[in-house]
Amino acid sequence: MIDIREILLPNIPDDKEREEISKITEILISGIRRILSRDGIEATPVLVGSTAKHTNLKNADIDIFMVFDRKYTERQMESIGLRIGHEVLPDGTERYAEHPYVSGHINGRKIDIVPCFKIEKNTKIISSVDRTPLHTEYVLTHLDEKRRNDVLALKLFMKSIGVYGSEIRVQGFSGYVCELLVINFGSFQKVLEKFSSQKGQLIIPETTALAAKYSSPVIIEDPTDSSRNAAAAISMENYSIMKIESRLFLHSPSQSFFMKPDQEKPLPYVERGTCARIIILPRPDLVDDVIYSQAQRAKKILVEHIVNLGFHYIDSDIYVGDRIEIIIETEAAQLPAVKKHIGPPVDTPNSMAFIMKWKDVKSIRGPYVCDDRICVDAPSGIRDIDTAISSALSSASIGKNLDRVKGEARIIDPSGSNASYMVLGKFYSRRIRL
Amino acid sequence: MIDIREILLPNIPDDKEREEISKITEILISGIRRILSRDGIEATPVLVGSTAKHTNLKNADIDIFMVFDRKYTERQMESIGLRIGHEVLPDGTERYAEHPYVSGHINGRKIDIVPCFKIEKNTKIISSVDRTPLHTEYVLTHLDEKRRNDVLALKLFMKSIGVYGSEIRVQGFSGYVCELLVINFGSFQKVLEKFSSQKGQLIIPETTALAAKYSSPVIIEDPTDSSRNAAAAISMENYSIMKIESRLFLHSPSQSFFMKPDQEKPLPYVERGTCARIIILPRPDLVDDVIYSQAQRAKKILVEHIVNLGFHYIDSDIYVGDRIEIIIETEAAQLPAVKKHIGPPVDTPNSMAFIMKWKDVKSIRGPYVCDDRICVDAPSGIRDIDTAISSALSSASIGKNLDRVKGEARIIDPSGSNASYMVLGKFYSRRIRL
Repeated sequence: MIDIREILLPNIPDDKEREEISKITEILISGIRRILSRDGIEATPVLVGSTAKHTNLKNADIDIFMVFDRKYTERQMESIGLRIGHEVLPDGTERYAEHPYVSGHINGRKIDIVPCFKIEKNTKIISSVDRTPLHTEYVLTHLDEKRRNDVLALKLFMKSIGVYGSEIRVQGFSGYVCELLVINFGSFQKVLEKFSSQKGQLIIPETTALAAKYSSPVIIEDPTDSSRNAAAAISMENYSIMKIESRLFLHSPSQSFFMKPDQEKPLPYVERGTCARIIILPRPDLVDDVIYSQAQRAKKILVEHIVNLGFHYIDSDIYVGDRIEIIIETEAAQLPAVKKHIGPPVDTPNSMAFIMKWKDVKSIRGPYVCDDRICVDAPSGIRDIDTAISSALSSASIGKNLDRVKGEARIIDPSGSNASYMVLGKFYSRRIRL
Repeated sequence: MIDIREILLPNIPDDKEREEISKITEILISGIRRILSRDGIEATPVLVGSTAKHTNLKNADIDIFMVFDRKYTERQMESIGLRIGHEVLPDGTERYAEHPYVSGHINGRKIDIVPCFKIEKNTKIISSVDRTPLHTEYVLTHLDEKRRNDVLALKLFMKSIGVYGSEIRVQGFSGYVCELLVINFGSFQKVLEKFSSQKGQLIIPETTALAAKYSSPVIIEDPTDSSRNAAAAISMENYSIMKIESRLFLHSPSQSFFMKPDQEKPLPYVERGTCARIIILPRPDLVDDVIYSQAQRAKKILVEHIVNLGFHYIDSDIYVGDRIEIIIETEAAQLPAVKKHIGPPVDTPNSMAFIMKWKDVKSIRGPYVCDDRICVDAPSGIRDIDTAISSALSSASIGKNLDRVKGEARIIDPSGSNASYMVLGKFYSRRIRL
């Protein structure tokens, strides 16, 4: 048997860290309160996030929200919020989620100061961050001290297998979803038992109304807002990984399921007898979520383009860091010189038009009849993968922000290079934790 | 406009040939009669086939059937039939369709002497040749002299576009089907109008009972045997070609639609930027129909085998002459070193077994999760086309008679050879007549 507390010990804050967090929080909240009263602003600073709910792992961020009265306009709230943020975090820089906010550091710990509007349970929000204080309140009143350790174990487990985090880069389970799972099923063990035996979607609470309303693999009705699926970010792949890993853990529990995952590191090319190309783009100055979803979309468009040309796609991946790296793997770098066009069925009037067209066009063979269709072997247009990717980059839009930098794209054949690439490290390490 | 009679003139027998055929037929029939009466055998010699129906093109075979009384056993009929055949055709050799028969030559013209049993319309036959005398009688009583030219034009047209003949090599329209089409629709022109406008199956007579009974593209109830589809041999491809060519002819009629098709001739390799292999097998001593269907089957098995291995199939063809040539064309001669195995859905118990198996087997990457399935990149087994074809030849049965000679098979890369191959000539000339 695994002793959860023993595993948690090195991963959760010790007394010293807890004291430090309290102190920083107190200083920040009292500082903000002072500014608010000095300037006559109707708003309340609130500690939210994992440190507020006591479900924080070591070195967690401190998130302080300033909950504004609804009499302010959105622009007022935002500009006042930013001003106060900068005042309490002298090294702070502005970030943008749905509202702009200030992010900085105190004693090396990341601090976010985020403005939001005050809302009541199940009322219309203006921005999704407005809900955060309600989440904190819900978890504080529904999760007793004993079960906080279960949440921490679940978070560690999910981090280890790579499904923790609701950001687009991960598309996994948020901290709030971990808390809701433990509140709902009762313990870390019971959450894993549920996943290990679950077939198809997971729906909480299990009603047909919810099943009809959402199509996501995991549906968890947000207790603070019945119109929201708190688990909407979770991809089918991450849900499947969680099922598999829960089964593997219950089958033979081991500490390794709580170990830090390997750091992403660059790797040189490994021969797989395939064709690989890495497309490298400069990173536009935008937050991860935006870049990541655009890079995903760019990858999808490039893959569709080369598949339409006839290349046999094997796999692809992206890495977003200082730059964007997209890898695309196909069976071969070169297409045949001939491409079979399957034309219309002979029973349709189009078949005659097809024949008349190809009769005068240079074809390699045909037109001929296959079964009930008219076909022709035409010369392939683009035959090599580099031209195919270049043409996709120049002809297709790969997203608003990436289009602006695509002129600087480089297409690299990693098999002919000694360099290492972050995306190769990610690509080769695709493996469940065993 | 096309003058059908002008086109027919060089292709149908002149007075001299007609006289010669009458003379040979008379000599054979009276000769057989004499033998039958000498030996006290109850049988009648009957001229059948196109020369009997006056629908013969130039240099047609003469087919004489000996219609035996049903009091004889099948073996008696066969042995008497062969004996008489040899007696009237001194150079005759034995052939085998459903019964054995004798085939020989007189004045360079091919003669078949075939024994069969006497049957009445719609009664049970013993062998399909038993029906032939009934077909002759039906056509003689239903096709007037004027429309014989329509049948001849239809035969010439079908020969020219390559769909004439019910043998397995062709899978097209028999002479009898041509006669039934003209009897049914009234003229060559009207038959072509029917094909050119027909959508889906052609069914004669057009009843739902027939449509339900057969699935062939063309269904023509045999007027001498309502339980038989006289058009069963016709493939979808040949039916489609006949539709297309009928439309092309009616769109711009030309003599070229009645010209002899190009002779099959060997051709050297032409670069198509693909991978081609020719498998050459010695020809077992069997009739065309048997060899052809076995060679077709062998081709299908080889193609299935390499497709299962992961090769991307483009096209294939066979040629049967003094030897059997099978060509198989794929996109590349080599497979990637890695093969993605898509395993069971994670929701099934098999997914754990899959993981446990691959965890201890040397894999290239994984196991990993794709969407809702567990996958692994395994090393490809057979990677090159020559090994793939060899292994298919040695492991799979390619038919009773070909299995006996497959040890002598040669696999040739025609791109590396200056030789010409009959199958390449056939392969490259795949084109409708335009």
